[in-house]
Amino acid sequence: MKLLSMVTLALRDMWTLAFFREVLLEFLGTTLFLFTSLSSIVLWPRLSPLSDSMGPAPSSRSETLQLSHECRSDAIRVSLAFGTSLTLTLVCLGPLHLNPAVTMAMIAGLRVSPWRAVLHVGSQLLGAMCACALLMSVSPQRENLGRNEITSGVFPYQAFTVELLVTFQLVLCILTVSHPKSAVSSFSPALAGLSVTLGHLVAIGFTGCGMNPARSFGPAVLTVNFQNHWVFWAGPCAGAVLAWLLHDLVLLPRWSCPADWL
Amino acid sequence: MKLLSMVTLALRDMWTLAFFREVLLEFLGTTLFLFTSLSSIVLWPRLSPLSDSMGPAPSSRSETLQLSHECRSDAIRVSLAFGTSLTLTLVCLGPLHLNPAVTMAMIAGLRVSPWRAVLHVGSQLLGAMCACALLMSVSPQRENLGRNEITSGVFPYQAFTVELLVTFQLVLCILTVSHPKSAVSSFSPALAGLSVTLGHLVAIGFTGCGMNPARSFGPAVLTVNFQNHWVFWAGPCAGAVLAWLLHDLVLLPRWSCPADWL
Amino acid sequence: MKLLSMVTLALRDMWTLAFFREVLLEFLGTTLFLFTSLSSIVLWPRLSPLSDSMGPAPSSRSETLQLSHECRSDAIRVSLAFGTSLTLTLVCLGPLHLNPAVTMAMIAGLRVSPWRAVLHVGSQLLGAMCACALLMSVSPQRENLGRNEITSGVFPYQAFTVELLVTFQLVLCILTVSHPKSAVSSFSPALAGLSVTLGHLVAIGFTGCGMNPARSFGPAVLTVNFQNHWVFWAGPCAGAVLAWLLHDLVLLPRWSCPADWL
Amino acid sequence: MKLLSMVTLALRDMWTLAFFREVLLEFLGTTLFLFTSLSSIVLWPRLSPLSDSMGPAPSSRSETLQLSHECRSDAIRVSLAFGTSLTLTLVCLGPLHLNPAVTMAMIAGLRVSPWRAVLHVGSQLLGAMCACALLMSVSPQRENLGRNEITSGVFPYQAFTVELLVTFQLVLCILTVSHPKSAVSSFSPALAGLSVTLGHLVAIGFTGCGMNPARSFGPAVLTVNFQNHWVFWAGPCAGAVLAWLLHDLVLLPRWSCPADWL
Repeated sequence: MKLLSMVTLALRDMWTLAFFREVLLEFLGTTLFLFTSLSSIVLWPRLSPLSDSMGPAPSSRSETLQLSHECRSDAIRVSLAFGTSLTLTLVCLGPLHLNPAVTMAMIAGLRVSPWRAVLHVGSQLLGAMCACALLMSVSPQRENLGRNEITSGVFPYQAFTVELLVTFQLVLCILTVSHPKSAVSSFSPALAGLSVTLGHLVAIGFTGCGMNPARSFGPAVLTVNFQNHWVFWAGPCAGAVLAWLLHDLVLLPRWSCPADWL
Repeated sequence: MKLLSMVTLALRDMWTLAFFREVLLEFLGTTLFLFTSLSSIVLWPRLSPLSDSMGPAPSSRSETLQLSHECRSDAIRVSLAFGTSLTLTLVCLGPLHLNPAVTMAMIAGLRVSPWRAVLHVGSQLLGAMCACALLMSVSPQRENLGRNEITSGVFPYQAFTVELLVTFQLVLCILTVSHPKSAVSSFSPALAGLSVTLGHLVAIGFTGCGMNPARSFGPAVLTVNFQNHWVFWAGPCAGAVLAWLLHDLVLLPRWSCPADWL
Repeated sequence: MKLLSMVTLALRDMWTLAFFREVLLEFLGTTLFLFTSLSSIVLWPRLSPLSDSMGPAPSSRSETLQLSHECRSDAIRVSLAFGTSLTLTLVCLGPLHLNPAVTMAMIAGLRVSPWRAVLHVGSQLLGAMCACALLMSVSPQRENLGRNEITSGVFPYQAFTVELLVTFQLVLCILTVSHPKSAVSSFSPALAGLSVTLGHLVAIGFTGCGMNPARSFGPAVLTVNFQNHWVFWAGPCAGAVLAWLLHDLVLLPRWSCPADWL
Repeated sequence: MKLLSMVTLALRDMWTLAFFREVLLEFLGTTLFLFTSLSSIVLWPRLSPLSDSMGPAPSSRSETLQLSHECRSDAIRVSLAFGTSLTLTLVCLGPLHLNPAVTMAMIAGLRVSPWRAVLHVGSQLLGAMCACALLMSVSPQRENLGRNEITSGVFPYQAFTVELLVTFQLVLCILTVSHPKSAVSSFSPALAGLSVTLGHLVAIGFTGCGMNPARSFGPAVLTVNFQNHWVFWAGPCAGAVLAWLLHDLVLLPRWSCPADWL
């Protein structure tokens, strides 16, 4: 009974036009961000199926080298696409999370209420699936959709640590620049984009760079392939919590001003 | 009779030195922007004619891979050249459209009168042809001039969707940053350039990345090759209209202040 | 007699500590800028001498392709190095010309007196030679020092036009951002660097990208090789004059305020 | 006796919470900066061990070319990762040195007391070792950890000069932007990052680009390989001292205001 009235209260609190607009923008923003970013991976006509079927002995080794090299050149292109796309989405649609790990750090810091966070994360996941469905309809190949995979030779615990690291720096950057008294708050979209680019430069050869459970969830659902999928939820969430601890306990200790917590 | 007086009125409205200057700058700006950007594609000595005439069996396959790789490295260079070139043109010559799709979104939002828009688009197309003619005179090869083509294996409807997508984000970005009350209006040239770079990173392997009917029109006229040319007009224009709808109905709803419409 | 007194007057006008500091900084700045930029071309251990001496028939063709490809990847690296280096030099040492073509546009616009300009250009050329001499002492190969050369298959008049084009956009950018009332004057080092990067992205495969007679002069003197050297003086100077005409006659017409001319 | 009281005085001066926080942040910042940057080198699965063991005569030469090429593509990725990582660390954790060479220039200019500098450098070295230990635990290969090595064919004195050069421009940039009256002080993290990127673009093919004794020290300790290690301490420190001389004697002569020295 008490729970019911609590839920009612929470719902009434959220049942406003402003919150609907926020959730709608979160949905639209995630769709736009992930459609643009993932299409930089997916829409490129691939050579790999060809190289599997063809190629006799002498040239096959050279091909392997070249294809892995190709993946390296792609790394810079994909990193720039993700970073730029996030920057432009934040500029056009205003300050959004677009990432369940960021929302999680916001809950931990009591910057957003858990009830609202559920809807935020829900619309992010829906947006990611929507982006991947759109992508599937226009892509000449339908097999991978930019799914995050752990590169062979890498242990899951190592992939977990790398995901933790890159999300740590992303969430730390977002907490810093989104602080209203920050000196760089007018550059927050650019710095968030830079941080996503850095994460991809570091981790793309390792796990394809998740950093964002929604970005990993969309392609996994659409291709119905959840192998090692836990890594792309546990790593980013652990990184987000660590970044929140560092930011709120060491960098800008909030215990000194209890008003911030309420 | 009434039509004639309307035309006269419209013409008298436009028959000012300021408007002539605007149209002249639109022409000069498009010429400068497209000459610089397209020359980053065209002026580079190509290897493809050589690889067609030469190359026996064992190395031919390796060449194919390498040339497509080369096109990939080029992708970053060309993307950066287009974005930088747009940024610098906007910085030097002031806020211009340089793109019929942008002009179209401006008409839809009643930001520019249709009569003026016709002259804007006309000078853009003239500028594009002028840039391509200049380019033809200095380029060691005269066959392609950076014409937008749909990569083999891609259906026209997919190319249309990709063009729609990239133009959507470009026009959304331009509408956002060109709003006089925007917080980022002082960075508008940089953000417009970033948006063009993002579009090229995403779409260059797919259609050569149009995003701009004038940019597609110039090389098509000079090489007299209009194959699939409708895609590079319909896609960008549809994207521009969608971006205008999102911006004016959801992001900054203008129905609340009717004065804006008049 | 009259000439002598004029020279005396001009010398007395320049015989100040402030002007000596300016010329010294121009010298130091050109040395720093060109040492850093050219070393990104020169200091890289090359493979070309090896590939000349080795390599039997089947792989030689593949090598040619690969080496030209390597030159392409280098293009982005060298472009970024030149642009970044110019930006940082301007940030650290203040607003300098560092480029005889820029000084020429300043003379044409009566922004600097011809007497002073001679010393500016002299210190730029001296700085360029100094940078190349330093470079020669640390480089493992001493044959090219990043000398500008016209790529085979390109006619000199085409190289001239390309040099004219890229210098035109550079000088136009510098005249725009260095105007004291410019809205972007606080970003002038970044925009000048961007413009140099754009020029290299466009022209590096064509002429090695001069844009700056001092940058072409230094390596040419140190390697005593002046083949087609006129292109790298005539092209940039013609581009500078055209950019000055466009800026001072069309963009910010200065005839309206004669005080600016005196 | 006098020395003891001096040490006591110095210690009491430093025995404050603010200074502990500073040293802790220096440690955390160096760990974060070097973990992120070095992992962009280390975490990438390598091909070199394979190419040593395999590959018969005809393709082995082509492999050599390709691997060196790969190292070139990597150059841009690693350069961007180092620069971006430094920028974001400075944005998130505030103005830190993160580099013994920078601390040295600060001592020379009497901007920081020698007693404090010792603890700064100590925490930087500790942070670097900590970053390398973390890196070792997650990396699939444990042999190099991104250690700085002099490329074969390069003499140590040349490597010393290159390290001196790149650190010179880095420290000059940091002294300029960290001056409180600097016009660009709000962009200091971005400019410091740009300077690190420039250094890597120039020197990465030569020495792996040290620029930072802590960055060279960490991998050298963890792999217990100190070959030519002096170059990565002597070069950066000489460059820092030269940059300090240029800045404090020529650019912003501090003898004119003696109060600055005390």
